[in-house]
Amino acid sequence: MRCRTCGAPAIINMRHHKLSLCAAHFPDWVVKHTAKAIRKYRMFKPEDRILVAVSGGKDSLALWDVLLALGYHADGLYIDLGIDVGGGYSTRSRETTITFQESQPRTKLHIISIPNVYGESLAALAKRKRRTDRPCSLCGVIKRHEMNRIAMAEGYNVLATGHNLDDEAAILFANVLHWQIGYLRRQGPVLPADGEGLARKVKPFCRFYERETAAYVLVKGIDYIYEECPFAVGATSIRHKETLTRMEHASPGTKLQFYVNFLRAKKEGLLSSHDRARPDLRMCPQCGQPTTAETLCRFCRLWN
Amino acid sequence: MRCRTCGAPAIINMRHHKLSLCAAHFPDWVVKHTAKAIRKYRMFKPEDRILVAVSGGKDSLALWDVLLALGYHADGLYIDLGIDVGGGYSTRSRETTITFQESQPRTKLHIISIPNVYGESLAALAKRKRRTDRPCSLCGVIKRHEMNRIAMAEGYNVLATGHNLDDEAAILFANVLHWQIGYLRRQGPVLPADGEGLARKVKPFCRFYERETAAYVLVKGIDYIYEECPFAVGATSIRHKETLTRMEHASPGTKLQFYVNFLRAKKEGLLSSHDRARPDLRMCPQCGQPTTAETLCRFCRLWN
Repeated sequence: MRCRTCGAPAIINMRHHKLSLCAAHFPDWVVKHTAKAIRKYRMFKPEDRILVAVSGGKDSLALWDVLLALGYHADGLYIDLGIDVGGGYSTRSRETTITFQESQPRTKLHIISIPNVYGESLAALAKRKRRTDRPCSLCGVIKRHEMNRIAMAEGYNVLATGHNLDDEAAILFANVLHWQIGYLRRQGPVLPADGEGLARKVKPFCRFYERETAAYVLVKGIDYIYEECPFAVGATSIRHKETLTRMEHASPGTKLQFYVNFLRAKKEGLLSSHDRARPDLRMCPQCGQPTTAETLCRFCRLWN
Repeated sequence: MRCRTCGAPAIINMRHHKLSLCAAHFPDWVVKHTAKAIRKYRMFKPEDRILVAVSGGKDSLALWDVLLALGYHADGLYIDLGIDVGGGYSTRSRETTITFQESQPRTKLHIISIPNVYGESLAALAKRKRRTDRPCSLCGVIKRHEMNRIAMAEGYNVLATGHNLDDEAAILFANVLHWQIGYLRRQGPVLPADGEGLARKVKPFCRFYERETAAYVLVKGIDYIYEECPFAVGATSIRHKETLTRMEHASPGTKLQFYVNFLRAKKEGLLSSHDRARPDLRMCPQCGQPTTAETLCRFCRLWN
């Protein structure tokens, strides 16, 4: 297996692209194809201020690294949920994120501690809300709320997340299994900004397989938290990922085709209707953020 | 495990319906729920003349049996493709179909032998067309053409096939993986008739799991061909069925929800567009049947 560019021994073989690359040329390929996705889906422009949601995992750190390599103004946001099972999962991922940021001069890292700001860790909240079986849904509510709050407060107009193709294909798979039309309408590389206070959300890594982002951080020597969040063990999304991975193994490119053809079909009018991509929004009377709820937003209801 | 109706030992437990039934009450349940599906999807009325496509397998024989039990005018059509691998597969399935028909007075069985009428078995045709790797697609073209030809020639206005939920879910799965919008638009329990010579097609068993139709023929003592067609071994559709069956095992009801929610989403406007469910049709200059092709239909091109 040789690098297509220089003939040196390859470190990765991407069967879906029929492409092998070496340790020197693979990171260049990732950077180039991220730039291509940013252009293709019109994610943002050089003058935009980007806030990258960083978890300390490979995807978000790789994304931050690539956006900086491309010369974008990209700062980080780490949301500490106070997860102390799995031997201090939150502490270790926060430290890993800080270490990365310290290696990148001229970047800023915003850190929000949920226990400090709201008085409760995710585990305590899940216990009080009797959702210990599914804390991931609470985590989602908290992260979406805090990401947008900080973006608005600190003057970022774009929120970038490290979702990779495996993530996106698994989400699409779940949405299709239940035919969640609303979710299908909103799923895509870009969720536009809303005049009422929602930052634009983008996923520049949506066409990279997980093993490609993993190879990127390994080759670049970026230290990252490699274990799954201890709460995610057994989640349905992980089961869907396993199903898709088996299918990918039997037929390379399955995930990429599934996701890319979905985007193409949407562009060609699948799911088109009178509805807009985003439902009607009102302002939460407590936090002031946009919400579809009639009274308090889902986030504020967590703490009331 | 006890029958919900009478308390006798149950012969089947349908976890997705939370329902167990005995050998006496399960066939009644199948008949009742077939009638319900016929009404729900407005498949046909008592005065319609129905042609059931019968392969000798459990689904089509069970369907024919149930339609007769419900008092419909339902005759059979057996298409003999001359498949002689697997120890005379076609011969045995034809004999099984004839045996069933002989037990049903006042029914008619139309038998079409493809080798006799068109001079070539499926295997010979696949060899000549260099499609030995995928004869199933040729089989589909032939069956669709002949089913419609006989229905039109013999005055049947409804064509019924024994597709079960496992079949429909696997087809839907494949269509979704590739986002085949045209196929998704046409997939459903009913494909309407076309004034230009296409009979209405219906799938009254589309909500029954395969194991339910299998249990029906076993309980009713209907003899059927239980092996897969020897050409279907290794087909992608079988791989998709295995994937879905694994998912069903982890979460009972997965296939039913996947299919039923798809139909609900379509009803609510998913996939709606200016296009009709059926594309524009013209008449094949050779056989006179409707086709989307510019010249000869796909079937006639097979033999030219």
